[in-house]
Amino acid sequence: MQKEIIATAKKIRSLKIQGKSAVRKAVAEALKKSAEKSRAHSILEFRGEIEKAAQELISARPTEPEARTAVRIILKAFSMHSQSLDEVRHETIKAASDYEKNRSEAMKTIAEYGANLIPAHSVVFTHCHSHTVEEILKKAGHKIEYVIATETRPLFQGRITATGLSKAGIKVKMIVDSAASRFMNEADFFMTGADAILSTGAVINKIGTSQISLVAGKEDVPHYVATSSHCFEPMSYYGIPEEIEERPPNEVWNKKLKKLEIKNPAFDITNAHMIKGIITEKGVFSPEAFAMQMYNELGIAGRREEFSSLYKLWHKKEH
Amino acid sequence: MQKEIIATAKKIRSLKIQGKSAVRKAVAEALKKSAEKSRAHSILEFRGEIEKAAQELISARPTEPEARTAVRIILKAFSMHSQSLDEVRHETIKAASDYEKNRSEAMKTIAEYGANLIPAHSVVFTHCHSHTVEEILKKAGHKIEYVIATETRPLFQGRITATGLSKAGIKVKMIVDSAASRFMNEADFFMTGADAILSTGAVINKIGTSQISLVAGKEDVPHYVATSSHCFEPMSYYGIPEEIEERPPNEVWNKKLKKLEIKNPAFDITNAHMIKGIITEKGVFSPEAFAMQMYNELGIAGRREEFSSLYKLWHKKEH
Amino acid sequence: MQKEIIATAKKIRSLKIQGKSAVRKAVAEALKKSAEKSRAHSILEFRGEIEKAAQELISARPTEPEARTAVRIILKAFSMHSQSLDEVRHETIKAASDYEKNRSEAMKTIAEYGANLIPAHSVVFTHCHSHTVEEILKKAGHKIEYVIATETRPLFQGRITATGLSKAGIKVKMIVDSAASRFMNEADFFMTGADAILSTGAVINKIGTSQISLVAGKEDVPHYVATSSHCFEPMSYYGIPEEIEERPPNEVWNKKLKKLEIKNPAFDITNAHMIKGIITEKGVFSPEAFAMQMYNELGIAGRREEFSSLYKLWHKKEH
Amino acid sequence: MQKEIIATAKKIRSLKIQGKSAVRKAVAEALKKSAEKSRAHSILEFRGEIEKAAQELISARPTEPEARTAVRIILKAFSMHSQSLDEVRHETIKAASDYEKNRSEAMKTIAEYGANLIPAHSVVFTHCHSHTVEEILKKAGHKIEYVIATETRPLFQGRITATGLSKAGIKVKMIVDSAASRFMNEADFFMTGADAILSTGAVINKIGTSQISLVAGKEDVPHYVATSSHCFEPMSYYGIPEEIEERPPNEVWNKKLKKLEIKNPAFDITNAHMIKGIITEKGVFSPEAFAMQMYNELGIAGRREEFSSLYKLWHKKEH
Amino acid sequence: MQKEIIATAKKIRSLKIQGKSAVRKAVAEALKKSAEKSRAHSILEFRGEIEKAAQELISARPTEPEARTAVRIILKAFSMHSQSLDEVRHETIKAASDYEKNRSEAMKTIAEYGANLIPAHSVVFTHCHSHTVEEILKKAGHKIEYVIATETRPLFQGRITATGLSKAGIKVKMIVDSAASRFMNEADFFMTGADAILSTGAVINKIGTSQISLVAGKEDVPHYVATSSHCFEPMSYYGIPEEIEERPPNEVWNKKLKKLEIKNPAFDITNAHMIKGIITEKGVFSPEAFAMQMYNELGIAGRREEFSSLYKLWHKKEH
Amino acid sequence: MQKEIIATAKKIRSLKIQGKSAVRKAVAEALKKSAEKSRAHSILEFRGEIEKAAQELISARPTEPEARTAVRIILKAFSMHSQSLDEVRHETIKAASDYEKNRSEAMKTIAEYGANLIPAHSVVFTHCHSHTVEEILKKAGHKIEYVIATETRPLFQGRITATGLSKAGIKVKMIVDSAASRFMNEADFFMTGADAILSTGAVINKIGTSQISLVAGKEDVPHYVATSSHCFEPMSYYGIPEEIEERPPNEVWNKKLKKLEIKNPAFDITNAHMIKGIITEKGVFSPEAFAMQMYNELGIAGRREEFSSLYKLWHKKEH
Repeated sequence: MQKEIIATAKKIRSLKIQGKSAVRKAVAEALKKSAEKSRAHSILEFRGEIEKAAQELISARPTEPEARTAVRIILKAFSMHSQSLDEVRHETIKAASDYEKNRSEAMKTIAEYGANLIPAHSVVFTHCHSHTVEEILKKAGHKIEYVIATETRPLFQGRITATGLSKAGIKVKMIVDSAASRFMNEADFFMTGADAILSTGAVINKIGTSQISLVAGKEDVPHYVATSSHCFEPMSYYGIPEEIEERPPNEVWNKKLKKLEIKNPAFDITNAHMIKGIITEKGVFSPEAFAMQMYNELGIAGRREEFSSLYKLWHKKEH
Repeated sequence: MQKEIIATAKKIRSLKIQGKSAVRKAVAEALKKSAEKSRAHSILEFRGEIEKAAQELISARPTEPEARTAVRIILKAFSMHSQSLDEVRHETIKAASDYEKNRSEAMKTIAEYGANLIPAHSVVFTHCHSHTVEEILKKAGHKIEYVIATETRPLFQGRITATGLSKAGIKVKMIVDSAASRFMNEADFFMTGADAILSTGAVINKIGTSQISLVAGKEDVPHYVATSSHCFEPMSYYGIPEEIEERPPNEVWNKKLKKLEIKNPAFDITNAHMIKGIITEKGVFSPEAFAMQMYNELGIAGRREEFSSLYKLWHKKEH
Repeated sequence: MQKEIIATAKKIRSLKIQGKSAVRKAVAEALKKSAEKSRAHSILEFRGEIEKAAQELISARPTEPEARTAVRIILKAFSMHSQSLDEVRHETIKAASDYEKNRSEAMKTIAEYGANLIPAHSVVFTHCHSHTVEEILKKAGHKIEYVIATETRPLFQGRITATGLSKAGIKVKMIVDSAASRFMNEADFFMTGADAILSTGAVINKIGTSQISLVAGKEDVPHYVATSSHCFEPMSYYGIPEEIEERPPNEVWNKKLKKLEIKNPAFDITNAHMIKGIITEKGVFSPEAFAMQMYNELGIAGRREEFSSLYKLWHKKEH
Repeated sequence: MQKEIIATAKKIRSLKIQGKSAVRKAVAEALKKSAEKSRAHSILEFRGEIEKAAQELISARPTEPEARTAVRIILKAFSMHSQSLDEVRHETIKAASDYEKNRSEAMKTIAEYGANLIPAHSVVFTHCHSHTVEEILKKAGHKIEYVIATETRPLFQGRITATGLSKAGIKVKMIVDSAASRFMNEADFFMTGADAILSTGAVINKIGTSQISLVAGKEDVPHYVATSSHCFEPMSYYGIPEEIEERPPNEVWNKKLKKLEIKNPAFDITNAHMIKGIITEKGVFSPEAFAMQMYNELGIAGRREEFSSLYKLWHKKEH
Repeated sequence: MQKEIIATAKKIRSLKIQGKSAVRKAVAEALKKSAEKSRAHSILEFRGEIEKAAQELISARPTEPEARTAVRIILKAFSMHSQSLDEVRHETIKAASDYEKNRSEAMKTIAEYGANLIPAHSVVFTHCHSHTVEEILKKAGHKIEYVIATETRPLFQGRITATGLSKAGIKVKMIVDSAASRFMNEADFFMTGADAILSTGAVINKIGTSQISLVAGKEDVPHYVATSSHCFEPMSYYGIPEEIEERPPNEVWNKKLKKLEIKNPAFDITNAHMIKGIITEKGVFSPEAFAMQMYNELGIAGRREEFSSLYKLWHKKEH
Repeated sequence: MQKEIIATAKKIRSLKIQGKSAVRKAVAEALKKSAEKSRAHSILEFRGEIEKAAQELISARPTEPEARTAVRIILKAFSMHSQSLDEVRHETIKAASDYEKNRSEAMKTIAEYGANLIPAHSVVFTHCHSHTVEEILKKAGHKIEYVIATETRPLFQGRITATGLSKAGIKVKMIVDSAASRFMNEADFFMTGADAILSTGAVINKIGTSQISLVAGKEDVPHYVATSSHCFEPMSYYGIPEEIEERPPNEVWNKKLKKLEIKNPAFDITNAHMIKGIITEKGVFSPEAFAMQMYNELGIAGRREEFSSLYKLWHKKEH
């Protein structure tokens, strides 16, 4: 394997490259370079190289659906009935280049759709830091009275949200995660990002999202999820559950006690019925309708084999 | 005023003396000493001294109902139809001494009643650190599979809980506050202390309690509150709301940003209908029934004037 | 029977005297006069006269628990072991005079307790017109940002509320009854009066109260009920259901259609668990605790016969 | 011990005597006979005999609070400051005789209170067989359109209900337990008995009660519980949990399979907040208020030792 | 612009033409006439004329999605690759004529599908007046025991419903809007129309609909919405919120008070999860599935520009 | 009609052939034989024969949507533009043969998708006996700690489930139906089959399913429904309600009482919002999304006439 691939995978594994967007970009960039530098002599050999590279990159961080989406879209180049190795290589490089461009156009559209939803004098409650939600809030800035942001333990990503919004001139009220039920009644919207969306419309996001969504539901504050459709997880149609990353205990407390076990799951699952709408670059959908749209768009019904082989790319053994 | 009173009040104000139990003890002790050292020449003068001392001590930390209860019980000595200054002084000193003794006997009874409720192989979810809950859990130790403890931002009192239980040989699973909805379904009980109980049976406790109680309710895990009846707040019958202490923002984040405001309320209110039972030294009550018992026991109906004057002791002006 | 009694009963029946307070006053006044003018020659004869008068007055408007309370308290004079007819007559007149005085002192206390509950910058949602709620809102006037008042079909009593508050300098936002769910999230409190309170803590009030209470519950806005303890209905402990008055259809629509039936119930029942607190002259209670207090205060356990005979006073036949 | 005691205890253990009422009667009767036939020579000896007999009888069926209540009331005779053995014996026999008489008078009152609650044309849903509910339904017979009765697995006690009501001329619609959610919307009331009522107002009754209460709550059908106050369980104030009887698996299925375990709990617990009212001989209470009434009536606050010693009578070792 | 257009727009603005169906018909008719009378000399000129007319008509009543749908369908004629001005004119006139015909066929199908859903002996609760619901109820007339109709303040459209049904021989029970919670348990269905359906499946309808839907949900009465698919609002996919018309305060109360503000919103929004099914001419859908069907049918994914330009037709400036 | 058809129909009617799978197989087999033995001389005559046979078979058990699906798929052969009688016959026989093969392949896929969803150490709650659920549980056997199975009155199908699982080495805990609320909190999943799925995503299944689903919802245990897409009921799009079979009363109790009526509905309806996902051979869907997929796949929009004629095949008269 090429050194660049190994180096990139290493950086992802050690969290030198981290964050949904950064990982995605690095994967696409690495595959593009891999295709450019390939010395393969046949389409088959070339494909083998690229698949191996993809496997190395994805397995470096198994809970990033968007990285998998990037690989899926780039590997599509192989099914384009290209005749020669040069054509295939060209298609692969183009797919990798286009991916990031499409992604950032999607972001603009989501920001516009999301900002449209927010009327003047709104108070928005958010949890953790989502680049997509931040873009929406900035675009809707003049209509926003203030944003309530949780600090988001254990890694305090809420501080990134607060810093970004404050710089953009948007007033932020920061609270501890436990105070959500105390402040929710001030809000007109609860808006979060999503790390993955499943076939039932359920949303995987930072730990705490489902708890605050329950609070929002009790106060009748609608929960909107803003995310690119690239975060949709097609494997969930086949009953393959999304793994929830368990992170190191010392992020919570750097302490050893005889009887103490520290659990630090990174994400939780919010059921579809708790979510009012998913704001994507394709429009604003109910969670179920969005899942349906992806089902039809991805042609899930007839692509079981293809997705399964993709799935095997980054899983040594069945669950 | 005597130096000891001023010194104790100062320590309370600066949090050198902190925690419900420590504040209560310090107040009783200071009043006792104040009575012992008094050089008053008449009952009236003596009473004036003690009331002034009480006012100084209580206003040092206005949101501690139990400290007020201590004062109320000690001041009762004046209504005992004692004939001489010596008798009054004696009664006051005795009331102050007895108070702490009664309080620690109450704790033993609560621990027993609470431990009785817990069957073998139970998992108990708790929030923050409550001395009372810790006593119950230790007493029921052999019947407890493990305790789930939140870290409890911003001051991490959950770590005190974890350390105490671990030392007592009880297994603890610690999580961030946001992960309550992820782990609640493992629990058989949600058990917390209470800083105050109101006339409607509502419970004031550490911020986050009402949010986790909502989660417990969704999972049908009963929420028990363990507390001495000394935490009951009689003024709430007269419609006087309990103030919620707002603590310094730098406990949450030591950062100044142009548009950032940090809110740090110490407590929240959990409604009576969310609470299954209140474990007190008088028995295990539904919240409404407990409030009723206190109403009758304190003779609220006929003591409006007395409580009002007590109330004025530590409040300069009406709300 | 004396002419005054008959005249007063007639005015009540024809709604010339209407409203909980006016009816109550008229009943007490009439009984007082009846006692003053009585020419009875024995205690027995006197008692017969007064009971007959009471029966006439109460049956003129069977769904006014407070009128019944007035009678009950006045009739207590007979059980005071008075020796002579003069003494009995005196006690009766005094009970009737005192009643209204106690009642208006109660109102002042309720207004104070209720106003205490309302913090600065509050928005209060109310339904129909309640003299008690109006007094609370006026007393708390400077702390109230605005009041949301429903128009309250069919008789538009919300307009009385709006006029009264507006005159008192309190901002009012008036809406149709159907718009409650649209505006509830602006409110900090939902506050209503009560026509009667039952043994389970349930509240009988103007039609629409339970519907808006459901809306308030969904938005976590606490429902407080303000009422004198005189509205408590002791007969409900014996399982005797409170009748709901069915009023004339032409209040709703003055129209005859072949297949049209118009139903116009005056009241509905809001369950105890939907109510956060009942503000009375005795304090602020949870509904269940208030019912319990009345149970003990009225000595329900041992007075079954007495209340039953009272009940028979104004009911010809058992249900 | 006397042979009659041993024989009665044996019959209770082997279910030859079964059902709340039958067990209670047998216990009272046996204690009465035991007192009559006693050859004790001192009050102390007599008391020892009676307590031993009580212990034998109660431990034959540990989950019958009413049997324990019978014993508690009968043993009260010893605290009546009687001077001679004859007096004590007389008081004991009288207490045992009176008990059953009071009990059946209570039943009449409950039936009256319960029937009062039911308006004309009502449909009542019931579960299992409760003698008390049957009495209410018979008393209200002419006002009842029909009763929906579950068959009540595993022992089909619903058939007893159906037979009794049918004989009394009341229409019965019988369904399997699983069909409750299908038929609940036809009902105006869900009415059950209770095997025990706890300090929080929670109700222990036949397995299935809490499940159907949930269904009733969803359809807004009020759940009333009819029971004598003798079923109140005072020990629950001390945190002592009521044991739930686990009955033989062959009642469910007389089958042995390698991997099959059959669980057959006889009762479940319905939380206080799911119950609209408890119909007792003292009146119709909210569950919390009823628990409060019993707390005061039994003097729980000051009788901890007494109840504890009673508790030890029928429990060898602490939980 | 042609006089007819201006006259029609004026009538719509002044409510001389009102009601969803009447407005829609008038718009289609006016556009048809406008096309017939046009003296344009080029396709471009003709298109300009028609668009201007459309803009004038729609802006006369901005909250009528069906009028917008009519315009959208009629303007489609321009994209049919017609070669000559005559062909374009012909297509436009035909589209306008066909529109109303399709619309009334849709109504028949909806009535049939809706009536199919209603079993014999049903009680149906409805709010306001919906032509579509009235058609369903008439078609199902023999199976309907009675209809419960709210009067629907402030404009009493419930009286139109009552009159229409009564004439058709269907029994109607009319109540004030506030009495919904009192009568809902008699109903088997809650059935309303819809003014618009959004991308998340949420329904915009007469103020009060969401409140009564909450009541229906509590009583487990399914809420069906009957409406033509022409009421679907495609712009909501782009995050563009539907404006809620605020109507004149004097419809509620013709009174000026110093501190009184009267709010009179015409519509409210009922969330998708509260609605059991949407009865359309395409079948009976869950709200989410219906929104999805429209998404695919309208080709939302690829028509953003087209819809946006349409949107700009009747909005001067962005929200 | 051929004897085989009549014989098969008779066996279905008398429950000699019973169970969703057995009925479906018998119907397909009978139609296949009918086609093989036909002596028809024209396509028209042949079609008449087959339709008559289908009508006879389906009307033998009107509440088996899967049998109707089998017929629908087999009758499709007639619309395949076959030229000769031989071709049509061949297509019909092939369709009947293929049907069962496709069906059993679907089962394998469902079992795989369902088993994928279940993580290690899971406890699964199930109701009644579903062949599909049994397959999933067996496939996931090593990951299952134990299965909780209701006995499922009146016909005890839970015993079939228990026997099958026990034989497959999976631990089973069996309970009466009423004990679901007692044991649900032990479960990670509630998993049932489905007899039919409607256009709104609602599920028709064995009586008790909706009640236990309510219990599962309260405990936040996700309800998954496993079923082949062949159980989807397309007629529900046209508002035609699925009939609920009423079975003989003696299955519940073989007893006649004067006032006793026994109701024995075989199925109930669980609303879409209570179901987390539907596991089909096409993937794991939210109920609404699955209904949408079937709508598009079956081409419901344009096939109203065709489905209606099919519907008339087995229904003499409109509802």
